[in-house]
Amino acid sequence: MLSTQQKAQTQMDDSLQKFIRKHTPAIEERLNTLLETETSSLTLRDAMAYSVNAGGKRIRPLLVLATLHDLDVSSEDAITVACAVELIHTYSLIHDDLPSMDDDDFRRGKPTNHTIYGEAVAILAGDALQTLAFGCLTKLSSTPAEVVLQIIHLLAEASGLRGMVGGQVLDLEGETKQLSLLELETVHINKTGALLSFCIEAGALIAGADAVKTDKLKTFAHNIGLAFQIRDDILDVTSTTEELGKTVGSDETSDKSTYPSLLGLADAEKRLKSHQQLAKSALSILEKEESLLGLFADYIVERKS
Amino acid sequence: MLSTQQKAQTQMDDSLQKFIRKHTPAIEERLNTLLETETSSLTLRDAMAYSVNAGGKRIRPLLVLATLHDLDVSSEDAITVACAVELIHTYSLIHDDLPSMDDDDFRRGKPTNHTIYGEAVAILAGDALQTLAFGCLTKLSSTPAEVVLQIIHLLAEASGLRGMVGGQVLDLEGETKQLSLLELETVHINKTGALLSFCIEAGALIAGADAVKTDKLKTFAHNIGLAFQIRDDILDVTSTTEELGKTVGSDETSDKSTYPSLLGLADAEKRLKSHQQLAKSALSILEKEESLLGLFADYIVERKS
Repeated sequence: MLSTQQKAQTQMDDSLQKFIRKHTPAIEERLNTLLETETSSLTLRDAMAYSVNAGGKRIRPLLVLATLHDLDVSSEDAITVACAVELIHTYSLIHDDLPSMDDDDFRRGKPTNHTIYGEAVAILAGDALQTLAFGCLTKLSSTPAEVVLQIIHLLAEASGLRGMVGGQVLDLEGETKQLSLLELETVHINKTGALLSFCIEAGALIAGADAVKTDKLKTFAHNIGLAFQIRDDILDVTSTTEELGKTVGSDETSDKSTYPSLLGLADAEKRLKSHQQLAKSALSILEKEESLLGLFADYIVERKS
Repeated sequence: MLSTQQKAQTQMDDSLQKFIRKHTPAIEERLNTLLETETSSLTLRDAMAYSVNAGGKRIRPLLVLATLHDLDVSSEDAITVACAVELIHTYSLIHDDLPSMDDDDFRRGKPTNHTIYGEAVAILAGDALQTLAFGCLTKLSSTPAEVVLQIIHLLAEASGLRGMVGGQVLDLEGETKQLSLLELETVHINKTGALLSFCIEAGALIAGADAVKTDKLKTFAHNIGLAFQIRDDILDVTSTTEELGKTVGSDETSDKSTYPSLLGLADAEKRLKSHQQLAKSALSILEKEESLLGLFADYIVERKS
């Protein structure tokens, strides 16, 4: 028989699963609608669609929607913002997998974009997905134009020189030298954290959340961003290739600095739990018995892939 | 002694030269200001700045400013829009030069980005320049937010799947098969024309030009876009490596479809003149004795590199 705590845990997981099952098809439909456009270049559109449909978990778009849900606001524009961030994420994966970067032939158990379409088209598919991300944000219908510009600004900050792409270059540089914990954290705050934070902040912007709530949500976002990366590093050590859908142990083989390599596995786990706790504490501002964002924090920390 | 016509020609060239000399330093200063931002990734910022400062002619930003000049409107936002399009152009050059695309070691007489920074950083520098282009447009100060969103939308259309990047994929596909004249035109309308058209249309938008003027300016833009590419193809046949600052005759060597290869050099020249004429006729709507855009059309058709 389940204990009360286990029952609560099961119930919470059910709520998140229900939310994910409800919204994922709509996100994927909208992503494909954004790609169903007249174009002379069908090869490029195919290459873009291939990676968009390569089976991601859609964590980022779901985080946008969960933020609005937790703020008790609904907006028909939320799904477009959710798709914009997924398009940025997808372009970054295509470029990360290229031979001159991580040189990965498989991602989520499927051949990577360049192994199917060749390097040139893969680079261009990534380029055009980034363009589409910014382009689709200009078509929001119920958000004031000034707020839309703030969202576009946030997305550019989160994904460019001062965010994701900057973090990717730091990560590449980190492959050839031992990083300090602070340097490792800087890599991940930029490479992974900035885009995850965007999801929460953009959700708060669309919802018109006040400054105090927005600030707490930023704290939440910062901590789940770091938790996400620590969990990734731990999975690379403890998981199997089958579970993960990509080659495991690659960090170890390349002597790359990771949380487990710098802290040891046990302390990396502790740090992970600490970020989970800080993230969930920040959510008390929502005054909700059950917060979807809180469930997401648990999911990020406990996920197997 | 100069004939009257030659004198007029010299005078016109002087006006354009004066305009270019006046505005180019301001464009370059603003481009560098956009890059002078705090970042943890100095390597990435250096790589971005390297290509931004690699000596382009700044035709696209100058076209934005010339459009406003010809419409007798001044706006402090024009230079930011001008820089956004130059950032997109610069990112596209970095990616075009990559080993998996044109594999060029030199551009404008200087080593290409990837020969200095390596392929991975070059790809990421291109990525972050694209992000910066969209990001900087969110900071226009004197243009209504709705119009800014229209400009961002236009830039995304001109540079993504349905514009520049789409054209680049068609161009790559054209390398392995003989194209018809119509197919060749489709390649160039997308690859080069769309971004040049953006410059004129964005200028018209900022200036608040009416529908009739905007329509004529679009005709102008369409024709100088094609003229630009035909001139490029002709220069590849007739110019020297020194004049062009890049390897010439590369189209011929690769059996690539070009205007001279499909039409012969003489008919390609005729077609070039015809687009020049159509472009300049469209400018009669401006009712100006001397139009900078008209001078630009002449420059594009007569340039030596």
